[in-house]
Amino acid sequence: GARPARRRLSVDRRREELIAAALELFSRHDAEDVSIDDVATAAGASRALVYHYFGGKQELYVAALRSAAKELEARLRPQEGGNPLDELSRGLARYFDFVEEHAAGFAALLRGGPANRAGEIGEIVDGVRQRLFRLVMNRLRVGVPGPVLRITLRSWIASVETAGLDWLEHRDIDRPELERLLMDHMVALLEVAARRDQDAEHLLESPRRGTDRVTPDDQ
Amino acid sequence: GARPARRRLSVDRRREELIAAALELFSRHDAEDVSIDDVATAAGASRALVYHYFGGKQELYVAALRSAAKELEARLRPQEGGNPLDELSRGLARYFDFVEEHAAGFAALLRGGPANRAGEIGEIVDGVRQRLFRLVMNRLRVGVPGPVLRITLRSWIASVETAGLDWLEHRDIDRPELERLLMDHMVALLEVAARRDQDAEHLLESPRRGTDRVTPDDQ
Repeated sequence: GARPARRRLSVDRRREELIAAALELFSRHDAEDVSIDDVATAAGASRALVYHYFGGKQELYVAALRSAAKELEARLRPQEGGNPLDELSRGLARYFDFVEEHAAGFAALLRGGPANRAGEIGEIVDGVRQRLFRLVMNRLRVGVPGPVLRITLRSWIASVETAGLDWLEHRDIDRPELERLLMDHMVALLEVAARRDQDAEHLLESPRRGTDRVTPDDQ
Repeated sequence: GARPARRRLSVDRRREELIAAALELFSRHDAEDVSIDDVATAAGASRALVYHYFGGKQELYVAALRSAAKELEARLRPQEGGNPLDELSRGLARYFDFVEEHAAGFAALLRGGPANRAGEIGEIVDGVRQRLFRLVMNRLRVGVPGPVLRITLRSWIASVETAGLDWLEHRDIDRPELERLLMDHMVALLEVAARRDQDAEHLLESPRRGTDRVTPDDQ
């Protein structure tokens, strides 16, 4: 017969607890420095249990990464009501909150360093970038972008990721300044796109922006 | 005694030939679809010889990738005499020549797909990005960039890579248009940086640019 609901819930919950413990460790340390034993200890579980749920460290890492990707997506879910660029700015702040909280793991994963990027991992990373792209398009109320706007938005997303890595490495610019810089980049890139693409032009017209087209920086 | 010079040269040359054959195959196919036998056949060599030089496919891939990275660097070596942004524009064209010639390999490597990005491979990719960063800084006559200019230039390099991937995927914008778009992005990003950073401001002042500061696009 079917497994009793209560038992299934505790199996899922235990698995989630192990993933949460693994994610916490992978976020703060190089994956090479995290062992199955470390995860077991952090979760108050036995080694055998961790191996029971996950074939090995690679599978555990992949599960933790999927969990992190889901968490990021949930935190970036749009909160309606504001002009598109303000919403994007708030999303950017939440993205950097996430980056800060998972700093070591983020850097290890995206720098292309020792972290194994084979198959599944690369697909998860690509999946996150695609979802970020759709989130940005939603916030900017873009339906199907033409090539210029598509390249522009994907470029900006890649540059946000790179800026995050640079910031984690150097920490010589504070977060509000970094976020303002990246938003100014977005506006500047949209202005370039607007000369070639009508959708981008509409994005920059008030009242969508809630401000004049030429905006002095907040210094 | 020392190995005779003639024999050493032919050992090196044979190794280079095998790498060249491997690079040609890895540039045009998914790495998964390339076998040691394919490389041996393409190089007119025996399977045993390929294994003699390279422990296995992974090592062969890494050697081919190093060779490609060197080739890219050689092709981007600055040719003096022109204003910085024009030089950068020519470098960008040579970068995209390279991307076109190694299209499948470039896409497989950087999309974070099935290509194994562990250790060495990630380090080679990072090394190329760092060299591109130094090349851009040299072309723009920047010594030691402050954080704003550094982030701006690294962001632009990441966006060039992403634009290259997007272009290989979609092929719905022609190369000259793509290159003009990316150069307009660079100017726009430098203008944002210039409001915060004196080096960036100087970059945009004529006669370095050879043009007026506000440049209408070539349509």
